[in-house]
This record gives sequence, structure tokens and C-alpha cells, in this order.
Amino acid sequence: MYRLYDYLESGNGYKVRLLLTLLKTPFERIELDIMKGATRTQEFLAKNPNGRIPTLEIAPGVFLPESNAILFYLAEGTPYLSSDRLGRAQVLQWMFFEQYNHEPNIATSRFWLGHGQEITPERKLALEQKNKLGYAALDVMERHLATQPYFVGGRYSIADIALYAYTHVAHEGNFSLDRYAAIRAWLSRVAAQRGHIPITQG
Amino acid sequence: MYRLYDYLESGNGYKVRLLLTLLKTPFERIELDIMKGATRTQEFLAKNPNGRIPTLEIAPGVFLPESNAILFYLAEGTPYLSSDRLGRAQVLQWMFFEQYNHEPNIATSRFWLGHGQEITPERKLALEQKNKLGYAALDVMERHLATQPYFVGGRYSIADIALYAYTHVAHEGNFSLDRYAAIRAWLSRVAAQRGHIPITQG
Repeated sequence: MYRLYDYLESGNGYKVRLLLTLLKTPFERIELDIMKGATRTQEFLAKNPNGRIPTLEIAPGVFLPESNAILFYLAEGTPYLSSDRLGRAQVLQWMFFEQYNHEPNIATSRFWLGHGQEITPERKLALEQKNKLGYAALDVMERHLATQPYFVGGRYSIADIALYAYTHVAHEGNFSLDRYAAIRAWLSRVAAQRGHIPITQG
Repeated sequence: MYRLYDYLESGNGYKVRLLLTLLKTPFERIELDIMKGATRTQEFLAKNPNGRIPTLEIAPGVFLPESNAILFYLAEGTPYLSSDRLGRAQVLQWMFFEQYNHEPNIATSRFWLGHGQEITPERKLALEQKNKLGYAALDVMERHLATQPYFVGGRYSIADIALYAYTHVAHEGNFSLDRYAAIRAWLSRVAAQRGHIPITQG
């Protein structure tokens, strides 16, 4: 059985939990308290030298880190990843966009603001920058979703799962979706998928 | 013929140029001066709403952005991407690591320092943070390469191309590779590949 090293509040962890649940694939979840350094122990660094969750143990001693690489691994051969070469590349395009333009801004703001982290003057400056860049990422999503129901090929895929994870909790990072009608409609379509689970469900 | 929207100094553009050259695939290169806003014109935003190079036009009017998504698209079915499911996921693991942990720190430092960008007090603070995080990424790479010649499956792949692009010019961002013997040996192995081209070659 898959073993998922995870942290319940993590949107990156949620991506994997959500897809495994949609696929009706059983898994064991190991909760690690990242606030207490549980991913930086020698024991965990032997599993993932980058010291991060989610990390999926796909066979005894075989560990796969990086949420979007895990999504791709699990989705191959399922309806959640295109069987077409260009479609796969477009799914990856949006997943790289998510990790480069979206997550470092929207997820990090949520993390800092949501965990009572001290907002130092340096962090205040960084938050202002992340706010600007996070809205730029939302602008790109809105423009794309204005003309199509899902990110790639007109159907729900792991590109949607990757971008849903932190978009649907963007308000926790002080981002308002009020002026993003297409994004809000897409969030509703994703949440209405059969088998959908909330981020709070382990 | 493929048309590559590019900027010669860009490591992200170089990834695509390098793979196309290794594959002996002819392409037309369109140089865009990102310093003069050439990727933020309405004309270019219609090609890539995220306003960035590289963007590959794979057929008339069909545009694929995101360097690592382009690498994956071009490498499918070639020796540069594993035909094995786990191998593909591990290649993606390192490419997501590159875009999240490596590029925003090492490439951005190189860009700011190498283009005579004004180093404001805010940017000075950001550079210090990027220096720390960039070295953390190099530490993870060194640990991995200490026991294997390439990133995945013992052979040269697009994971190596993605990480080579900015690692081999890390000194331009004030990163020293002196204490990274495994990385330096790997850089030499990559540069010795038949058909290798330098970043300065369009």
C-alpha cells in the first residue's frame, strides 16, 4: 500500500490525498509536524534529501517527492492525465506555472499569515511582493479560464488538482477572489467532482 | 519547423536550444529582448499569457510555454526521457525541484547581478535570502550526485539538462562551486556529451 508522508494543512499534500481518493486507491498517511522540524530529521532526509512533504513511498524504500511529480506518476493511464502528447505537455505547463508563479506567492503568504509566524520587516516586504505576484498569477488563470471549463483539453485533470489546492484557500493568504468570476466558477466545478474531499480530510 | 521564442542569455531558453540541438531537430529562433518588454506586448501575451520565454510554437498558432514542459514534450520517445513510469516521475521530481528550489534563487541572483539591475535595499535583502536558499539547493544536488553520475537512472536525461542550465553559470550569481566536487564532475560529464552547445550559441 502507498504510504504518504504528509501534513494535513499543506495544499501540496492535499493534491496527493485528493487524487488518491478520486482514484479510490488506498493509502496510509503519516502526519509529520513540519512546524516542529519533523521533515528535517536525519531519518526523514534519508527518504527525501530536500526535507519536504509530500513524499510518497511507492514501494518499500522507494520514495517519490514533489507533489506534482507524484500527481503525474499516479495519473498516468487514468482519465486525470491526457493520453495525448501535447495534452500531457500542457498539463505539465500548468503544473510548472503552479510551482513557479502561484505556490511561492499564494501558499507562502497563507503559511506565514496562518501560522502566527512573526512578521518581521523583511517578511512584510516579501509579503507585499508576494501579494503582487500572486495576483499576477491569478490574472493569468482568470484569462485562461474565461474561455474554458478546465485548464487542459476541456476536462478535469491533475493540472486542475495542482492549481485548486492553494487557490481555494487563497483568502487565508489575504487574496480576494472577488474580481475573478471565471476562477470562482472553476473552483465550484472542481469541488463538485464525484469523490471530491476537502483539504481538512486526512 | 519549430519556432522558439527565446532570449540568448536565458538558461531556461538554453535548455530548449540544447535539447533541440542534441536531437538534431531544426528550429527557428526568435530573439526577444526581455529587458525592453518584448514579452509583455499584447502580441506576445496572445502567444503566452504568462509573458515569458521560452515559448515553443510547435505548429502554426499552437504555443507551449514553460521550459521544463517543453523539454518533456520534445523528449518523449527519445533517450532523454525514461520509458519507465517511475523514471519519468523521477525526472519530473528533479525538474520541479529545479523550478522551485534552484531557479528562483540561482537564476534570479544571476539576472539581478548580471544586468546592472539597481540593487535596492529590498533587493539586497532578497539576494541574501536567495544566496542561502540557492546553496541549500546545491547541497541537495551534491548529496544526490555523490553516488550517481546523472540525476535519474544512471543516464543523461532532461533532468540533467534542466539543472545544468543555471548551475554551470551559478558563479554569475555569486555562487561558488568550490566545495561541490560531485556537481563539478557532473557539469563536466554533461558538457562532454556529443552535440553539446554552450549557452551563448543561438
